[in-house]
Amino acid sequence: MAIRLVATDIDGTITLHRGNLLLSQEAIEAIRKLEENGITVSLVSGNSVPVTAGLARYIGARGPSIAENGCVIFYKGERYHICRGRPGQDLIDELLRLGFRESWQNIYRHHDLAFYPPASREARERGILLAREKGYKAFDSGYAIHILPSQGGKDQGLRKVMEMLGLEPGEVLAVGDGGNDLPLLEEAGYSACPADADEAVKRVANYIASKPGGSGFAEIAELVLAGRIP
Amino acid sequence: MAIRLVATDIDGTITLHRGNLLLSQEAIEAIRKLEENGITVSLVSGNSVPVTAGLARYIGARGPSIAENGCVIFYKGERYHICRGRPGQDLIDELLRLGFRESWQNIYRHHDLAFYPPASREARERGILLAREKGYKAFDSGYAIHILPSQGGKDQGLRKVMEMLGLEPGEVLAVGDGGNDLPLLEEAGYSACPADADEAVKRVANYIASKPGGSGFAEIAELVLAGRIP
Repeated sequence: MAIRLVATDIDGTITLHRGNLLLSQEAIEAIRKLEENGITVSLVSGNSVPVTAGLARYIGARGPSIAENGCVIFYKGERYHICRGRPGQDLIDELLRLGFRESWQNIYRHHDLAFYPPASREARERGILLAREKGYKAFDSGYAIHILPSQGGKDQGLRKVMEMLGLEPGEVLAVGDGGNDLPLLEEAGYSACPADADEAVKRVANYIASKPGGSGFAEIAELVLAGRIP
Repeated sequence: MAIRLVATDIDGTITLHRGNLLLSQEAIEAIRKLEENGITVSLVSGNSVPVTAGLARYIGARGPSIAENGCVIFYKGERYHICRGRPGQDLIDELLRLGFRESWQNIYRHHDLAFYPPASREARERGILLAREKGYKAFDSGYAIHILPSQGGKDQGLRKVMEMLGLEPGEVLAVGDGGNDLPLLEEAGYSACPADADEAVKRVANYIASKPGGSGFAEIAELVLAGRIP
């Protein structure tokens, strides 16, 4: 079965390298080449819908955009909500008291809220625990602390996208670099990561690129186009 | 006086060409080169704040982002509102009756609303007139019909940015391609446009690139870096 959809994380995967937020020119080129060859590309991100969908449009990734860590899908002008509700004001207030600061994107978010963590590791851990005790998913993406309803997760977003496009897992390659990408990589039939991915990601990925970040993504795209993945 | 800020439109100016929404790789490279050489780049757009600011971050344009056609500025995590209020529901309802459709970005917009126009030119003109009669600015950007409070305009956004950064007009180069960029180009001390810009834009621009879209932008950036603009 050939790959028909490449679902890729943004930060650290199509940017220059881990911890860097500048898009890789090689990755943009690779995304356009995949699309020109009939392979759909979906961006999968913890960002808000407008940041993710806006970026997808300007890059040329035409597949459904999976935003807010799987809570919302944006496709052809329509939103599809996977999550219900959002973290309550009581929890937000407790987090702010612990020294968390709200992301500027929160006012544009539907379900998944992002916070810049406090300097103290203890306060950070405490905030994450508090959110989990209230039934939310909570994790550190390496860029922000995300708190979202339990229905979310990049894997849940990808599951819905496969259903929308009528695809089997064996037709999907997921690419990511961080711990929060693990469920995404496991949901797809095939998975790949850049050379500088988390060790935990490297352990589950079917393919590990020899180059970091977006250069690694481009390398993976070339293997897909050459029919060498899967 | 040397150029310290390049304020550039997005659609048609740093994309492949007019009417195209794919970012030009040459333009991204040029923006990063300007920034590396100490020249700040601001994106100026009719897009919402998250689309504009998100794109600026991933491209590497570090200056204040001017969104919603000058109604909102985003800089270092903070929003600065130039406009007050937004088009009322009565006007929106009248536009919808005329066949206008709301942009998916409207739920993320503070002041400037965008609409996909009806097929009939008469209905389109009637909607624009209606908005103007109610005291709003209204125009066709070539991508959408924008309706915004009278305080808006890309020139108003740029004026505020120059104040924020302590810049004189003679230190600013504005680049744009469409009719709605005219006030922006006139506000800056120097102006430039790609080869495929509107005729009206070409008439006022100090520099007209020999290449279209983002290739033209890259050409203009090279002239700035070589000290040949101004």
